[in-house]
Amino acid sequence: MASDLSAEIRVRPIGVVDVGIDRPPSARGSRYNVVSTIRVFNRYAAGLLGLEGYSHIFVIYWMHEVRDTRLVVRPWGREDLPDVGVFATRFPPRPNPIGLSVVELLGVSPPKVFVKGLDAWTGTPVLDLKPYDYYDIVRRPHIPEWLCERWEQSRDTVRRAAPWLGPCECREESR
Amino acid sequence: MASDLSAEIRVRPIGVVDVGIDRPPSARGSRYNVVSTIRVFNRYAAGLLGLEGYSHIFVIYWMHEVRDTRLVVRPWGREDLPDVGVFATRFPPRPNPIGLSVVELLGVSPPKVFVKGLDAWTGTPVLDLKPYDYYDIVRRPHIPEWLCERWEQSRDTVRRAAPWLGPCECREESR
Repeated sequence: MASDLSAEIRVRPIGVVDVGIDRPPSARGSRYNVVSTIRVFNRYAAGLLGLEGYSHIFVIYWMHEVRDTRLVVRPWGREDLPDVGVFATRFPPRPNPIGLSVVELLGVSPPKVFVKGLDAWTGTPVLDLKPYDYYDIVRRPHIPEWLCERWEQSRDTVRRAAPWLGPCECREESR
Repeated sequence: MASDLSAEIRVRPIGVVDVGIDRPPSARGSRYNVVSTIRVFNRYAAGLLGLEGYSHIFVIYWMHEVRDTRLVVRPWGREDLPDVGVFATRFPPRPNPIGLSVVELLGVSPPKVFVKGLDAWTGTPVLDLKPYDYYDIVRRPHIPEWLCERWEQSRDTVRRAAPWLGPCECREESR
């Protein structure tokens, strides 16, 4: 039974990021300034019907160039931050390098989908698209202090590019 | 190159839903009333370090009992609703039956994680856990009229069970 539970699962990409963010080390600015093109493979394109009724979607993708798995990571390599488990971060070197981005949906022209805010490189396989709905909004999530500090540093830049984000205050006193 | 892009990807569960929601046809009420237990396999348990610093997380799971794929679905089988593509819904019969739930994190006691709001049956393989942060909050997403109507019918019940959801108004006039 234990072997069944951990048995390998096979997934097939439903599409690819035809135009995504530049790879490091080029400076790319905020991902919210990049318009990405997702091309859904023709055999799945019928599944896009009605997607344009949503302003935002989740893109689930496969970070195909991740080669290592680390269970404990140091955020941004910073000496002053604590070690954290990889499940407590969005960092790529996960047991399954599945990526998840909330993106603004700019347009659907099957088999292409145009989005803003996708944190995936050109050539990234896409596993699923899901609409973002009211079950996905947490009013004021609590996040660790180290991440709150980082968020406050980037918040104003991010919000200019993605004015639909919000609320954006992670401090207890402003709740 | 085209064959490379659609090549099969192999994932391995990082854990399992030890206690989840009841299967149909039992009436289960709102998923937000159910406390679920996720058991991360021991070899990955170190990855949970620091997860307790978040109030909410994403659970990405594999809906292992899905047997069919439908590209176009009729929401809840209702004759009065339009056909929509499966990517414009959260319904299970997807090309890759990957599930995604935003859940409240009640506690972490490695290798176990206790959550509220998980929409997965007991025995479901878990593929990844990710923290929910401020990049995941959309202020007032637009959703289709048919879904807005449905949301309004269930909203009060859902919010009693999950008071952290919000904002919860999908109508334009209340923006």
